[in-house]
Amino acid sequence: MKAFMDEQFLLQTPTAQSLYHDYAKTMPIVDYHCHIDPKDIADDRKYENITQVWLYGDHYKWRAMRFCGVDEYYITGGASDYERFEKWAETMPRLIGSPLYHWTHLELQRYFDVHEPLCPATCQKIWETCNAVLQNLTVREIIRKSNVRVICTTDDPVSDLSEHKRIAEAVTDFKVFPAFRPDKAINLHKAPFVDYIKSLSECVGYPLSTFKDLKRALKERIDYFHSMGCRACDHGVDVVPFALISEKEIEKAYKLALAKKPLTQTQIDGFQTALLLFLAKEYHARNWVMEIHYGVIRDANAKTYAKMGPDTGFDTIGTASCEAQLAKLLDTLEQEDKLPKTILFSINPADNEALNTLSGCFSKAGIANRVQQGSGWWFNDNLSGMQAQLQAFANLSVLGNFAGMLTDSRSFLSYTRHEYFRRILCNYFGNLVENGEYPADMETLGGMVQDICYNNAMRFFAFEEE
Amino acid sequence: MKAFMDEQFLLQTPTAQSLYHDYAKTMPIVDYHCHIDPKDIADDRKYENITQVWLYGDHYKWRAMRFCGVDEYYITGGASDYERFEKWAETMPRLIGSPLYHWTHLELQRYFDVHEPLCPATCQKIWETCNAVLQNLTVREIIRKSNVRVICTTDDPVSDLSEHKRIAEAVTDFKVFPAFRPDKAINLHKAPFVDYIKSLSECVGYPLSTFKDLKRALKERIDYFHSMGCRACDHGVDVVPFALISEKEIEKAYKLALAKKPLTQTQIDGFQTALLLFLAKEYHARNWVMEIHYGVIRDANAKTYAKMGPDTGFDTIGTASCEAQLAKLLDTLEQEDKLPKTILFSINPADNEALNTLSGCFSKAGIANRVQQGSGWWFNDNLSGMQAQLQAFANLSVLGNFAGMLTDSRSFLSYTRHEYFRRILCNYFGNLVENGEYPADMETLGGMVQDICYNNAMRFFAFEEE
Amino acid sequence: MKAFMDEQFLLQTPTAQSLYHDYAKTMPIVDYHCHIDPKDIADDRKYENITQVWLYGDHYKWRAMRFCGVDEYYITGGASDYERFEKWAETMPRLIGSPLYHWTHLELQRYFDVHEPLCPATCQKIWETCNAVLQNLTVREIIRKSNVRVICTTDDPVSDLSEHKRIAEAVTDFKVFPAFRPDKAINLHKAPFVDYIKSLSECVGYPLSTFKDLKRALKERIDYFHSMGCRACDHGVDVVPFALISEKEIEKAYKLALAKKPLTQTQIDGFQTALLLFLAKEYHARNWVMEIHYGVIRDANAKTYAKMGPDTGFDTIGTASCEAQLAKLLDTLEQEDKLPKTILFSINPADNEALNTLSGCFSKAGIANRVQQGSGWWFNDNLSGMQAQLQAFANLSVLGNFAGMLTDSRSFLSYTRHEYFRRILCNYFGNLVENGEYPADMETLGGMVQDICYNNAMRFFAFEEE
Repeated sequence: MKAFMDEQFLLQTPTAQSLYHDYAKTMPIVDYHCHIDPKDIADDRKYENITQVWLYGDHYKWRAMRFCGVDEYYITGGASDYERFEKWAETMPRLIGSPLYHWTHLELQRYFDVHEPLCPATCQKIWETCNAVLQNLTVREIIRKSNVRVICTTDDPVSDLSEHKRIAEAVTDFKVFPAFRPDKAINLHKAPFVDYIKSLSECVGYPLSTFKDLKRALKERIDYFHSMGCRACDHGVDVVPFALISEKEIEKAYKLALAKKPLTQTQIDGFQTALLLFLAKEYHARNWVMEIHYGVIRDANAKTYAKMGPDTGFDTIGTASCEAQLAKLLDTLEQEDKLPKTILFSINPADNEALNTLSGCFSKAGIANRVQQGSGWWFNDNLSGMQAQLQAFANLSVLGNFAGMLTDSRSFLSYTRHEYFRRILCNYFGNLVENGEYPADMETLGGMVQDICYNNAMRFFAFEEE
Repeated sequence: MKAFMDEQFLLQTPTAQSLYHDYAKTMPIVDYHCHIDPKDIADDRKYENITQVWLYGDHYKWRAMRFCGVDEYYITGGASDYERFEKWAETMPRLIGSPLYHWTHLELQRYFDVHEPLCPATCQKIWETCNAVLQNLTVREIIRKSNVRVICTTDDPVSDLSEHKRIAEAVTDFKVFPAFRPDKAINLHKAPFVDYIKSLSECVGYPLSTFKDLKRALKERIDYFHSMGCRACDHGVDVVPFALISEKEIEKAYKLALAKKPLTQTQIDGFQTALLLFLAKEYHARNWVMEIHYGVIRDANAKTYAKMGPDTGFDTIGTASCEAQLAKLLDTLEQEDKLPKTILFSINPADNEALNTLSGCFSKAGIANRVQQGSGWWFNDNLSGMQAQLQAFANLSVLGNFAGMLTDSRSFLSYTRHEYFRRILCNYFGNLVENGEYPADMETLGGMVQDICYNNAMRFFAFEEE
Repeated sequence: MKAFMDEQFLLQTPTAQSLYHDYAKTMPIVDYHCHIDPKDIADDRKYENITQVWLYGDHYKWRAMRFCGVDEYYITGGASDYERFEKWAETMPRLIGSPLYHWTHLELQRYFDVHEPLCPATCQKIWETCNAVLQNLTVREIIRKSNVRVICTTDDPVSDLSEHKRIAEAVTDFKVFPAFRPDKAINLHKAPFVDYIKSLSECVGYPLSTFKDLKRALKERIDYFHSMGCRACDHGVDVVPFALISEKEIEKAYKLALAKKPLTQTQIDGFQTALLLFLAKEYHARNWVMEIHYGVIRDANAKTYAKMGPDTGFDTIGTASCEAQLAKLLDTLEQEDKLPKTILFSINPADNEALNTLSGCFSKAGIANRVQQGSGWWFNDNLSGMQAQLQAFANLSVLGNFAGMLTDSRSFLSYTRHEYFRRILCNYFGNLVENGEYPADMETLGGMVQDICYNNAMRFFAFEEE
């Protein structure tokens, strides 16, 4: 029996152990997609207690507590920080098999040197230990301790990126770049659209009366983001749209949306397709990486949405098929030689295979895996989800080229998810080798591990090594 | 090499073995969803031979025999009971890797003390052994031997539940409750609808001329079922519908259906949605558990359907996506604070992840996993299907809260499927522990195992312990 | 640790090893579906070098090289054969976990006695060794060395099958039969339709002005193919269609297509359904096996399609659901008692379970698995894909009846894919036995292994043993 989450955690063979400890462990981290607040880095925020860093913003944990019937008072309500932590400690033991169980203990081990399981019996002691450590563990210290070299935050086009400027002035040993996420400009059928267009208009300083204006504004923001080091963008779409409509019809749809009038599905799809195509070409022109995340049914619970807003733990996996539209979107760009480097994420794990075969239709000379599936996303960011993604990638794409892991997280303690991923990767390689499926050539294997951990992402995003 | 199906069957680690033998094995059974005939319990039916109990009603076995090219004469035709048994024995060896292979031998072991594999060579001997045992093994004895505490049968709203009454009068050491299954009242587009409404009308004693009447009638039947101990209902839908239409349009659809006139898809969906919402609110008012089973393409073979009718082994997995509609159905109820406790079953295993994330959008304070995925259903009720369901539940929900197994069976010998499930569950826990993914805390683990085997279901359905 | 791809490759248990070496290994091969050119057998083609046999036509390898950013010049362009081979050798090490890694080394081992991994360091030496062997290794020698008994090629209805005649005259120790693939006659909505109808018209010697003519022509070609030993046909459809339209409407659709006029989706579906039903009945009348391959999004990249045409490595997995239509298609035939023996292939691995349950709805007395899922197809033809297919088949169908493996390949070196499959099959059986899930009865197990490797296919296709 292996000990609980010791140094050989998830490393089931000697080959896996050697690959992890000799090759993977010391590699720096590129966290190319996450949802941390750059202000926290700019301020070098310090937390008073573990609840603030763990439970204030992490809707993964909120969901788990809600599943256990915990009252919202203890989750996002008025309970004290310790009461909240207690509820989390009570929830823990029932999370057998959950990534939350592993993430929690990896974070306790790496940042707080706590090696016992969190549960009601250890709650008080762990609370005190963590809080003591947090007195000297600022956000920047967490980042440095985690050996992070590059962070890409997720930023709205209207952002002035002032926090990124502050960071760039203050920090030299890691980089924090913005990533461009123009979802609100694309979702013309959703309530915030009109207000959003107003704020974008204010940001660029001229009215956005036409689709042409909108494109001009977004292009300017892309230029600005680019000047701030941005090399990645991100699109979150419910279902990938694809409909080609005339310029005139696009303008009409835009005007209807601004007037808050009803839109047909073709108008919505046509507008969105046009804007996605326009933006993708701009990304391509700047050698950016385009990330597409799709498939989520967001805010499935209208009541909690009304109370708490988005990103509070009420999203679910959609199973509608949209690979045909996605294929057409990529193909339309490729026909003009303007398909950017692209990373594809579907929330439905049943799409793993489809994404890896689709990627293979849009290769480009000189760029390893110009299109590729991203690491197990969100509800797939767990042991079996990552194993399935690695296996599909290996079967249908070329795993040695994989750009690797990202946290997608709102918490600074989540960098251990890279460790989690690396252990799973090394274990996968180890199993292949020990089962006689790949030669026991540690140099080649170790090199590939290091590529997937760090080098491939640095190359793919064209981040410069200092 | 492990011995064939010995006491450590499916228990691959010492932890798994201890969890099963020390914690799971002796727990009673709540079989909260099955298709046995309550009359058999009321009569305390005795079987003349193993064919009667095994092969008279089990379309899983029929399918396997048909796959092997066995003539229908030996399946549902005029062959003698021994001839039928012989055909089953001939089929057995080819069923390598099938749950039928395991179920068959678990049943032979537990109820008949037969420990050798069934095959043509052992057919005659096993036939005799089983039949001898059956002389003293009535239905109630099987239930007692299986340590069953609660059974929920599946009953039509028009049922007078007289068999349940007879059972309640005669039996005290286990409970047999009805479960409310109003599918025929919902399927206004299917042939039996008009006749069914007639029989429901006769049952309540007044005409069901309007949708309002229909709702009144069903509500009365719910009340009656409730008075008989019913705490569960069950809906089997091909694809989960969702369409909101006006009360007037619903009445129109109902009238068209009664007149056997054609209906539009919107009329069908609108009527069904309205009735499902109405019923769900009634279930909620009585603290019932609502089970939703969806995705099956039923009676795919028109020729055999014409000969044999439904539930004879000619159904198949549908792969159409309907999670978006399901989400809206649950959300509509939640908006009125009237979402009942709910267990979701999709026949498509590719939906496992979606169901567990959807569940997480509708948690409720004070109820562990108010919405949850049910155990691997029907075509997923096998080793890998149950493993996949447990893993998805663990990854995306909170496995410690899982309400556990049910047989869904037409045979009284199927209680060993609970043993099968428990072994798989304990093995899953054992692997997590022995792989260092969860602490080797047997008390906590054993407690969770017992919860999932029995306690959680008792709590979730609010059945009272004697 | 197991040695790299030695004689126990993929055989993890003693039972698996015994099953493979004592039962599976020496069984002949029926390769019932492939894309090799019969002319190469008729000519008994000899290759100058390994690039010609490996890299001239294999779009699996092309995709892998493209993924690695290799320029098309080295793939299908003007590079020398050695330069191409070098690029393949460079690609190899990054293919960890890919079936291409295993296929490549199985082929190197079995046909060239090369037992070291292909990589840049070994490239020159392996090139020379392979080329030396190829001086004496003709196509027929490869087939004989591989112990192939029956090959079914894939042939257009207009083919005169002259190569098959030449082969039959020259070769007696293995059989090469045509398989009937009338896709071009069915795809009335695709560009080549009109030209294709012309060539079919020329082939039969009369005009095909009506749908009735078309059916007559295809029936004649079926008769001709039958006379040449054909017992299998094959349909590749994007999405399985199902729409019943009147004979008049079918004729109208046909005429519109011939006039290159636009068609409605109902016209396309209706025509295709009608033709599929017609052909299936003809197959049934001749006791042929009908293969249906569906789900691929073909030629997803318009730019490369314009340059290179179809089957060049730019296809992808479609995820649209069409099991409901497929069920209706089979049912319509069954209602007339004219459903042929059928093998179903979906490119989406998420359909494995659905296909095996669908098969169970159309069993027939006297034919083992009259309908069945085919072996892991194309993008599923890899270790985990085949394991998943075997498991779904075992869970939901009757694995002992499975008609087994085919190469689907364009290369004569691909017969080792049968070895790959057999090792996976034996390992699966071995694991079941060693885990106590099936008795260690080697005679029964070995018999089933041999059935699945060879006997079942011979029986299912009704090929005669010499």
